[in-house]
Amino acid sequence: MNLGIVGYGNLGKSLRGLIERDPRLNLVKVFTRRDPSSFNDEIMESLDKILDYKEEIDVLLLAIGSATDVPQMAPELIKNFNTVDAYDNHAHIPEYFDQMEKIAAENSKVAFISTGWDPGLFSLNRLIGESILVNGHTNTFWGKGVSQGHSDALRRIDGVLKAVQYTIPKEEIVENIKDAKQDYKSYESHDRLCYVVCDSEDEKRIYDEIVDMEDYFKPYNTEVVFITEEEFDRDHNSMPHGGHVIRVGETLDDNLAMYKFTLELDSNPDFTASVMIACTFAVNKYVQNGDFGAHTVLDTPPYYYSGAEKKEIIAKYL
Amino acid sequence: MNLGIVGYGNLGKSLRGLIERDPRLNLVKVFTRRDPSSFNDEIMESLDKILDYKEEIDVLLLAIGSATDVPQMAPELIKNFNTVDAYDNHAHIPEYFDQMEKIAAENSKVAFISTGWDPGLFSLNRLIGESILVNGHTNTFWGKGVSQGHSDALRRIDGVLKAVQYTIPKEEIVENIKDAKQDYKSYESHDRLCYVVCDSEDEKRIYDEIVDMEDYFKPYNTEVVFITEEEFDRDHNSMPHGGHVIRVGETLDDNLAMYKFTLELDSNPDFTASVMIACTFAVNKYVQNGDFGAHTVLDTPPYYYSGAEKKEIIAKYL
Repeated sequence: MNLGIVGYGNLGKSLRGLIERDPRLNLVKVFTRRDPSSFNDEIMESLDKILDYKEEIDVLLLAIGSATDVPQMAPELIKNFNTVDAYDNHAHIPEYFDQMEKIAAENSKVAFISTGWDPGLFSLNRLIGESILVNGHTNTFWGKGVSQGHSDALRRIDGVLKAVQYTIPKEEIVENIKDAKQDYKSYESHDRLCYVVCDSEDEKRIYDEIVDMEDYFKPYNTEVVFITEEEFDRDHNSMPHGGHVIRVGETLDDNLAMYKFTLELDSNPDFTASVMIACTFAVNKYVQNGDFGAHTVLDTPPYYYSGAEKKEIIAKYL
Repeated sequence: MNLGIVGYGNLGKSLRGLIERDPRLNLVKVFTRRDPSSFNDEIMESLDKILDYKEEIDVLLLAIGSATDVPQMAPELIKNFNTVDAYDNHAHIPEYFDQMEKIAAENSKVAFISTGWDPGLFSLNRLIGESILVNGHTNTFWGKGVSQGHSDALRRIDGVLKAVQYTIPKEEIVENIKDAKQDYKSYESHDRLCYVVCDSEDEKRIYDEIVDMEDYFKPYNTEVVFITEEEFDRDHNSMPHGGHVIRVGETLDDNLAMYKFTLELDSNPDFTASVMIACTFAVNKYVQNGDFGAHTVLDTPPYYYSGAEKKEIIAKYL
């Protein structure tokens, strides 16, 4: 399969690395809005020239920002390319689905939208867990991992030089979830741990600003650790993440059943990229079947991700 | 939806209890090969009369033995009914699939085969984990739970009055699996714990027969505990089970990602029944779409299990 990538941040770099080591895949180009010659790397190409590759690329992976880039660029790109994206603005996914569904179908293209792990595999497990265990409670725990939104909020505070925020699920709640019989609020089941680099005279003010920041930190148990820039650069450059989706259901006679899905990821972008690449095989299958339009993990036959045929997969896995 | 059940052992009883409490479902009859009047229960009906209910029943749930009953009875029943079964003879699933696929398609019926949790949800998670993390190791751990086959093997030993065998995964292997980078053999990663009721003079001989039994117990670390019948009846009447499917994959730069699916079930038959019931909604969807033949968890779009429409599910879960 011939693939292209749009965007070359952390996710784009992970996609490139994973595609280049996979013998089933060929990376045609990485498209960038920056000057491609500045990379001194022949795989880089200007986004302005993307239509020149229309015939060559089977699936385009969108490694661009969810907040504004995906809603602006994806509806244009889908006119000429099959796409996979990790659009994660939950509240706007239904309208984004409708938009992509319409344009993709009109142009005989396939858009695999909002994939990755949340939305993505976590959504899939919430759906399956609740479809099987119809009476019960679902809890999602995120972390331990870096929250980009909360790290950005820290960095916007006056005087903060560098900062990162880890979301940490409360282990005692995770461990006892089978007997808890409740849906926890996110602030009840998670702590927030902030590492901040700043001048020592700003620490008291910055601490107060953090713990008073409504929604981001206020209802949460928030710990703030001030560290040196050297410590920051040494200890906080990786992007671990993960979490759990747990459905606990009552079956009969007070019997409980726990359905639990867990991810532990050394690198969040590497894993998101791995999911997106599996989805390119699903896109390929949809195209072969002429099933154009928008698709998601919730409506995709699971063997589509394998790149293999149904009977082969049944013999191997069932 | 109008459902029927064939068979009234543990699984059949769980199916009945779960269907009767679900307002979306109506249980028409439970079909038995025994004399239905012996139950003194109007839901029970003779299997000989099942064709009388051909028009009334939307999906038939097969709660009959996998070893011989399913391969004999399912190919007949599928001629007149849509079916869901939990056929678990892994080695014969491909030929069973082909057989059911052909007969179901010829009769415009749908057969959802080999569902439950293994085969079933565990198969699904092996497939998805390996499709995403293409370089890595998959390990399956079963238990703590009762193995019916091993319990039967114990009961066949001369002098054994009652017996049960629990399969127990080695916790230290489960805990350290992320760094293990290997596929364990089942006997390396599980212990076997047997509770046996017998005359005290037989204990030495029975112990030797158990630990020497090739394949069933011989390569395993096997513990045998002799207990009284009173203790047995008090402590060993529930059917807990569960386990883990764990895929650990290498992404880039020595980063690891762990994909882990866990079940903890107070009642194995209740959970298997819960999965089978979710599959009746999938069967209903396949019938609506005219997609006749055989289907499995590996090729079924996940939202089919919910009984709801695709757009509603995307808005709710993605």
